Parts: sequence; C-alpha cells; structure tokens
Amino acid sequence: MTWLDLPADTPFGLANLPYGVFVRDDDRPRVGVRIGDSVLDLAAALDDPTFARSSLNEFLAQGRARWTEVRSRVRELLTDARHRDAVTPLLVPLAEVRLLLPVEIGDYVDFYASEQHASNVGRMFRPGAEPLTPNWKHLPIGYHGRSGTVVASGTPIVRPSGQRKAPADPAPTFGPSRRLDIEAEVGFVVGTGSRLGEPVALKDFPEHVFGVCLVNDWSARDLQAWEYVPLGPFLGKSFATSVSPWIVPLDALEEARVAPPARDPEPLPYLRDGDEHWGLDLTLEVRLNGHVVARPPAATLYWTAAQQLAHMTVNGASLRPGDLYASGTVSGPEREQFGSLLELSWAGETPIELPDGGTRTFLEDGDEVTITATAPGPDGTRIGFGEVTGRVDPAR
Amino acid sequence: MTWLDLPADTPFGLANLPYGVFVRDDDRPRVGVRIGDSVLDLAAALDDPTFARSSLNEFLAQGRARWTEVRSRVRELLTDARHRDAVTPLLVPLAEVRLLLPVEIGDYVDFYASEQHASNVGRMFRPGAEPLTPNWKHLPIGYHGRSGTVVASGTPIVRPSGQRKAPADPAPTFGPSRRLDIEAEVGFVVGTGSRLGEPVALKDFPEHVFGVCLVNDWSARDLQAWEYVPLGPFLGKSFATSVSPWIVPLDALEEARVAPPARDPEPLPYLRDGDEHWGLDLTLEVRLNGHVVARPPAATLYWTAAQQLAHMTVNGASLRPGDLYASGTVSGPEREQFGSLLELSWAGETPIELPDGGTRTFLEDGDEVTITATAPGPDGTRIGFGEVTGRVDPAR
Repeated sequence: MTWLDLPADTPFGLANLPYGVFVRDDDRPRVGVRIGDSVLDLAAALDDPTFARSSLNEFLAQGRARWTEVRSRVRELLTDARHRDAVTPLLVPLAEVRLLLPVEIGDYVDFYASEQHASNVGRMFRPGAEPLTPNWKHLPIGYHGRSGTVVASGTPIVRPSGQRKAPADPAPTFGPSRRLDIEAEVGFVVGTGSRLGEPVALKDFPEHVFGVCLVNDWSARDLQAWEYVPLGPFLGKSFATSVSPWIVPLDALEEARVAPPARDPEPLPYLRDGDEHWGLDLTLEVRLNGHVVARPPAATLYWTAAQQLAHMTVNGASLRPGDLYASGTVSGPEREQFGSLLELSWAGETPIELPDGGTRTFLEDGDEVTITATAPGPDGTRIGFGEVTGRVDPAR
Repeated sequence: MTWLDLPADTPFGLANLPYGVFVRDDDRPRVGVRIGDSVLDLAAALDDPTFARSSLNEFLAQGRARWTEVRSRVRELLTDARHRDAVTPLLVPLAEVRLLLPVEIGDYVDFYASEQHASNVGRMFRPGAEPLTPNWKHLPIGYHGRSGTVVASGTPIVRPSGQRKAPADPAPTFGPSRRLDIEAEVGFVVGTGSRLGEPVALKDFPEHVFGVCLVNDWSARDLQAWEYVPLGPFLGKSFATSVSPWIVPLDALEEARVAPPARDPEPLPYLRDGDEHWGLDLTLEVRLNGHVVARPPAATLYWTAAQQLAHMTVNGASLRPGDLYASGTVSGPEREQFGSLLELSWAGETPIELPDGGTRTFLEDGDEVTITATAPGPDGTRIGFGEVTGRVDPAR
C-alpha cells in the first residue's frame, strides 16, 4: 500500500508506475514516474543524473537489471511512510507539467499484425484477390517508418498534401489528402540494443524491450493507395506518428499477458512462442471529438511483440536503445472493434454517425482523435496507458 | 594553387575538399577534410570545437552560409603559403587514420530513381506485367530503410538469414540468403533540417543538402522477394547499408551538374525542375574481388536528388541534420552499366565471368565489393568520392 491518498481503482497505482519526460515552467526536461495524478521527479528522488535528461534513452540503455532495481526503489519510496516527508515535495501535479516525447526514437518500424485489419485492407485495396497475401501467416509483415516525424501526444497534425489518383482518374492530381485517417496501435520501446549480425531470440524479448505505449499512425489513404506499389507506404504515413507520453514497463503487464491466437500454419522455429505468452490484453478506445468510435482489442493480434522482435532481427539487424516498433492497426472481428476509419467507414461507403448529427468517413479539419487503453492489473484493477491525442489542422 | 605537393590530376585537390571523421591511434574521433592523401585536422586548423566531434552533424546543422565560410577558409589555409608552417603539422597521412561513419544518420530513405533499374527489376519480379508501375513516372518512388544499420565502409557484412520461398516451393524455408546482392547508389546527406508541416521546395535543395557520398545498399533478393508485398522491402535490406567515408560537398560538384533526362509525362508542378539542373554526372565503378563488373552512370537517373527532396517533404515531413537519402540502384542502358548483380546476372540466368575463371550470379562468402566514383571537376580534372567497400562474412 502506498502512503499517497489514491483511489483504490486508479489505473496509475503502484502496479503501473509508467515513465515519461516532463517539463515544469521554464525548467529543464526531466524523467518522471506517474503515480495517480502526480509525477515523481526521479532525478531528485533517486539523486541520479540519468533522469535529469530530456529522454529516457540513457536509462533504457542500462538494461533489465537496472530497470527492475529502479522500479523496486520507486515502489519503496512510495510505500514506506518514512519516505513521505522527503518524497512529497518531489511529486508534481500533472496539471502543472507539460509532457514531452519520452524517447529519442532510433528506428521506427510499423508491423501489420492484426489479421482482421490486414484482411479488411486487402478486401478494400485489392478487391477480387485473396484478402491476405501468401506470406502473411508465415511472417510478421512490417516496414520502416519515419522516426523523425514521431511526435508527442498533443502535437497538431497538419493535413498532408500529395499526389492522389483514384483508379478512374486519367492522371494524379496534387492537393490536400481527402482520406486522412488514424491507426490505433500498440507501441513497443526497445531498451537494450544488440550487435549487428546477431539475431535476438524470441525468448529474449523482455531483456530488450522496456515497455509499451500507444501509437496513432496517422495515414493519408489516397496518397498511400497511389504510391505504395511496389516499395510500400511512404508519404502516406511519414507526415506524423503520435505516441502517448507514458511508457508502461513490461513489469507492469504480467496480468495482461495472454495466449495469442492459434497459428495455422505453424510458424518457422524462430517465430514459435510455445509457452512464452506475449499476447497482451489491452483494450484500446478510440474517440473522435469525444465520441467513442471503436474499442480495438489488442489480445486478438496474430503476431506478438516478441515474435516481431525476433523477426525484425533474424537477419542480423541490430537494435538501439530508443527504437520503437508498433503493432499495426489493432482491429477485432466486430465493426466496433476496427482501429481505423478506413475500416469503420468501409473505404467511405458506410459513414460513422456522430452524436451531434454529423457523419464521418475520413477526418475533417478540426477533428480531434484520442486513443486510450487499459489492461488487466493485479486484484481486478486496471493498468492505464494514458492517451495519445491530436487535432487535425488545415493543409498549408 | 595549393602549397602542398599534389599531382595535377589528383581527384582530391582544392576543388574537392570532402569532409569525413577520422581517428588516429587512441585519440578521439575528429572531423577532417581530405586533401591529396592527407586529412586536415579541422578542429585544430580552425580552432573550433564543432569539429572535435565523432560526426559531422553539428557542422551540418549550421547551414549553407557556414559551409561556404568553412570551405573558403580551408582553401585559404591550403593556398596561402604563409599558413604552410602552421598547417603542415595538422595534415595527417591517410595511412595513419581510421575513417568512421561520418554522419549520425537520422532517417534513411532509399529511392528507386533509375528507369533502367526499375524496368529491369519489374521484368524479373513481375514477369508479364508492365515493367514500370503506373506511378513510377509521376513520382520518385521511395521507402524508409533502417538507419541503425547504416555502417562505415569496411564493416564486414554478415550474410543474413531469413525466410525464402521460390514461387514453386510449397512453403517458406529458413536459412542463409542464397541471393545476396549489392546496389550501387549515390547518397545525399541532409544538412539543415526543416519544420514539421512545411514542405521544402525543389529550388531549396542546396540550402538543405550538404553533400554526396556513395552507398552500397546490400540486398538479400530471396528474402526481399518473399516479404515485399504489400508493405515493401524490410529484412531483405535492413541487415546493412554501407556508406563511403567522404562527404563531397555540393560546392565541389558545380561542373558535374547536368540536365536530367527529359520527363514524359511532365511531372506535377512541385517536381518540375526547369533550369535547376541537379542531374549529377557521377560515373560509378563496381569491383567484385578487384575486378570491374559495372560502370553505372548516375547522369541517367530519371529523378534528381532535388526532386527526391521536394517529394519526400511535400507532405510536411520534416528533415533533420544527418538524414541520408539515396538514389536507388544506378543502372544505365547497357548491361555493363547495371548496378546490381540481380541485373548483371539477370536473376541468376547469365552468370558474370571473373578473370580467375570463376563465375558469379550472387555473392559468395569472402567476396569483396568496392564501389568508387568520380565526377567532372574544373579544368578537365576529376572529383573523387573515395570508395565504399565491404566483404561478405559467412552466416552465423
């Protein structure tokens, strides 16, 4: 039990303790841990300059033993009442801080791990063909995104312009995207790096991955549809990717681990997870202008983050502290579980109805999208992930 | 004229002055400028800590006016004989230094700008279809690569393993790539960054791009063929990308600028280059175990680096100092101008003959590939780019 006065059902209790980077007034950015609606100033609480930084990267690079040590020291500070007088002044109310991008991103990789999402997109983008490409159930399909445009939650999203060409158009035209979309995803932050030429085995996932955040992989579907053959998505994705400010450590997600869906066919040995159950039972919630439009269930993802890590490195590609990879859009089997407007509106054919009487196929200027999530914690509690939010600004 | 004793036809004379990062003995890395077969220690020569760094990034971020100022100061030091006594001790023989990766890479983007290469690949990968996809002549196709595995010239390349599946195979198998290849490319290093949401116009190319290097984009064709639909190349490329140690500043390439090929159809306005001729007349040379196997001509590239920059940012994607983008494989119209073994051996059908009596379709363990290039300089001289080299180590 903590000596703080917290509601019993807080999603940011002792079982969570996510890490972020905050700034107060004109002070320098610092690493903090969220407890309830406060941020514990770690540099001060632990008297450690690792946390007097503008990103988590230095701490991430220190590895699992150190992550465990710091987590256990923070729990001690927040439970042993003898620390109350010393620690209380180091708790900053959330309302008084600005939260920054918590990680200096190395490489950003986006996967495509939801069978429902990949099938939906296949049906819409390649009508008449098999919804899943022949490789989909053999490997976690992924691609590199633009790490320099990964932005903190709250950053305004300028509507991108680019080339658009519908199949019936004689030639492409240039202009603002008319099919601006979101993708509700789960993100994984790499802590410990690896050496070039040396694959990371699936079982070593918790040695290398520090924690989990939420990702909105903004997508311009019209730009993407015209450009993506043969080398994949580029400008349709690279204008912005938003991430939530709190990195929930894997240590907080023991109760959220679930068996992933059965795989058929059985994957090649380096992708077999046996009893290493790294399915994660996060329930996402997507709100458009405050109205819930979807509740995508991450437990349905076909490929786990541990499999993604093993695949991403099986060719010898190295990892760096601060690498980020994301699940791809999380979509469950029901329409209200689809994690993109492309799917929710079925490529614009069935608009979403909003409570104000309006409808949406894709995003309009001024629209605000917020993704939140929780996962099971100990004793029936929930672990919170905070939110990733962004508002659409008009094209320039 | 320089006071140094240099051959009149040196490709590393006063007209070139490329930048790199070197280390001598156990000293710390420093930025240097190459002149002849020496490296000028810039931190000492200019008494400026910007150059006492392990990368060019700080200098890159300072922008075009500063790049011009430093270049002109270096020329003065190397031409005015009054500086000879002070500067001579700051010239380190190349033989005494190790050259490092010159830039801390932000994002790495690989384009696909050679019409001959894209047509060749289309014929091999999608037989029976049009060689070029319908978008190819409307926009410079590109994708993000893995910046964390961009390595210095000379770094051994471990043969990657992964999933391979020929069309006739019933299922994929796992093992070392059997189709390990190279791609001879020209790389462009971004100096000045840009703001999120603000496109960089084609005419502003020289304000943002600092210089040019050589790139070997190692490729595992069997991994790539199986994985690349629908999201593009991933593990087939991400295991290693080698770059040459010297960044030749754009200022050294005035005589190398040529009109690019005529474009048909005319591109959309943001890609029109008018009189901004940023075709670059580099002639690459690819050697396999010392034997020249190709001389790809970069002047034939359909899309220029200025068009690539305008395209990459037209959706508002921002640039960072140290971003790297590459042309994609340079292939001219003749077989001996093809910049990959895939094309030179026509997917393995027509092996290359080597002087030792051996033949090659794709790379064998122990093979060493070296790419060099020169471009026209003033008064009939040539500008040198040095080399990017790598040897294939067996799979682990």
